[in-house]
Amino acid sequence: MKVHNFSAGPCVLPSSVLRQAADAVLNFDDLNLSLIEISHRSKNFVKVMEEAQQLVRDLMDVPESYSILFLQGGASLEFIMVPYNLLREGGTAAYLDTGTWAKSAVKEARRLGNVNVVASSADKNYSYIPKGFEIPEDVDYFHTTSNNTIFGTQMKEFPRFSGIKVCDMSSDIMSRRINVADFDLIYAGAQKNIGPAGATLVIVKNEILGKNGRDIPAYLNYQTHIDKESMFNTPPVFSIYVSMLTMRWLKESGGVDFIEQVNKQKAELIYNEIDRNPLFTGTAAIEDRSTMNACFLPTESVNTEEFDRMWKEAGISGITGHRSAGGYRASMYNALEPESVKVLVDVMRDYEKLKG
Amino acid sequence: MKVHNFSAGPCVLPSSVLRQAADAVLNFDDLNLSLIEISHRSKNFVKVMEEAQQLVRDLMDVPESYSILFLQGGASLEFIMVPYNLLREGGTAAYLDTGTWAKSAVKEARRLGNVNVVASSADKNYSYIPKGFEIPEDVDYFHTTSNNTIFGTQMKEFPRFSGIKVCDMSSDIMSRRINVADFDLIYAGAQKNIGPAGATLVIVKNEILGKNGRDIPAYLNYQTHIDKESMFNTPPVFSIYVSMLTMRWLKESGGVDFIEQVNKQKAELIYNEIDRNPLFTGTAAIEDRSTMNACFLPTESVNTEEFDRMWKEAGISGITGHRSAGGYRASMYNALEPESVKVLVDVMRDYEKLKG
Repeated sequence: MKVHNFSAGPCVLPSSVLRQAADAVLNFDDLNLSLIEISHRSKNFVKVMEEAQQLVRDLMDVPESYSILFLQGGASLEFIMVPYNLLREGGTAAYLDTGTWAKSAVKEARRLGNVNVVASSADKNYSYIPKGFEIPEDVDYFHTTSNNTIFGTQMKEFPRFSGIKVCDMSSDIMSRRINVADFDLIYAGAQKNIGPAGATLVIVKNEILGKNGRDIPAYLNYQTHIDKESMFNTPPVFSIYVSMLTMRWLKESGGVDFIEQVNKQKAELIYNEIDRNPLFTGTAAIEDRSTMNACFLPTESVNTEEFDRMWKEAGISGITGHRSAGGYRASMYNALEPESVKVLVDVMRDYEKLKG
Repeated sequence: MKVHNFSAGPCVLPSSVLRQAADAVLNFDDLNLSLIEISHRSKNFVKVMEEAQQLVRDLMDVPESYSILFLQGGASLEFIMVPYNLLREGGTAAYLDTGTWAKSAVKEARRLGNVNVVASSADKNYSYIPKGFEIPEDVDYFHTTSNNTIFGTQMKEFPRFSGIKVCDMSSDIMSRRINVADFDLIYAGAQKNIGPAGATLVIVKNEILGKNGRDIPAYLNYQTHIDKESMFNTPPVFSIYVSMLTMRWLKESGGVDFIEQVNKQKAELIYNEIDRNPLFTGTAAIEDRSTMNACFLPTESVNTEEFDRMWKEAGISGITGHRSAGGYRASMYNALEPESVKVLVDVMRDYEKLKG
């Protein structure tokens, strides 16, 4: 039976990618060796790394003045790498607080300097994206989180700011067209739209580095990794390979512009049902709804045991909401087929009829 | 044709492990989902993490007072995590300089305090392990590297020291019996004896943490990961799973004591040939020779093109020496079968006959 995998991450990957990944674990490039037992400095793996970097450049139209890195430690390590590389001693950074991850990023930056939280939606359990706030022009950088997995909100526009702009795009990178040149540093854990857990994508404008006067630990210094072409130390070989395959799949499927349309359709399908069906309520402000994570609550009329049994019987997996938000969360990353959203919508309708 | 994989890391893994890993990429635990598309918080993956930790505990006899973590960033990130967690502001750490990686560890520690390099074998291109040096008792900790992959040396004994002892065991962990209780912090990149690249094993005595008075970034703080049972953020799922399988294989094969005997036999086989065959010379001091990495140079009589062609024809892969050492390096990690060493020894003998 087909499983409809709505997991919030690690999450669904294209089945063709999984088949190729399994093959490479057994025999890579006809070497009679596994992908995971060859040297990362072998020409076979160097080719993988180069193709992965080139695919990021092509898919996202990354200008030549930016470097592309595959690191380790996830967004959580980036939270401290960003201030280490960009915050001056005694300097101030501006952060927009739109959820759990944004808050964690603020906490780490505070260890190295001052943080000005320019706006926060904590007052309404992060159910909206703050707007109309001021960003002081003299801060070292301005940090945003483009999509908030836990609360199902997404920034549709990014505030104007003339200084350095940093964005954590972990949960919506490559799901929609963004103009890379509008940012100076973009980072994203791979485990949503890029590939499996274990790699972190970093896209950084070279000229912003080396200017904050800090002595930066080697691994935490973006320049270290740029100088070594993302091979400063043994990279997460398997995660990078599968990310490369997933990006190849995305490119062959039609690229970011194509998938953005598919993602919009999937999101429309589920949000239309949430708004129509009297048994469920969406939690995020309508204009800030994420195309990646649709969060909704059952009304009092719902017997959640009954409803849960129904979606499980339909082969749906992973729609239980995060403990900070409750209810349900349907995560619809790039590789989730529209068919799966239809199945969920059908279950919601069938449940409404049952309660009828 | 069977490939004899002497790669220095990432390196050979048991073929049964590779088959199970490939299966799990297609369908894990009969979930009809891939291992790499399920939540790291699912009960199926939590079980993997727990079994991996228990296997480390069983295989290495880790006392209950130590925590076992699987992190990211490799030994290179540990180089800064160690001083962050153990070095006081203005404090001094003692390091033994036995090679390239030890030197990198010193460099990172110097960013956070004083380092006393108690001894170094840099004078003879790291071809031996320094002995008979003094370790001041008032340092915050003493750091060693148990095996030096690049130069083929290995510490057979660890100096007596009453303070905190830290050891980078990246390239010989689980290859021989060590008494964990003789150390306070052990770390190792997974990609030699433990599994594939992308995970770092840390074994840490709980009571040594939280005592140096520093504000430690969350990801770099061992306590963060202990508190979250190694699930502070999304862990490198695939690398941990394959490490778990590899440790299962090791346990089923007879454990560390058994593999230590096999490793000794493999090492004897190659070193006997290096010493016997007039065409080759070992580079490491005999008493410090590594059982993991045997480094040797061709004498002037060797036509390396001829010799290289011969071992390649025999299916041997990965014995070119590191650029800092030159010559050849046969890496013989746990999963390398004795048969492969015999094939290499035969090629060395055949080449001697040819030159006859």
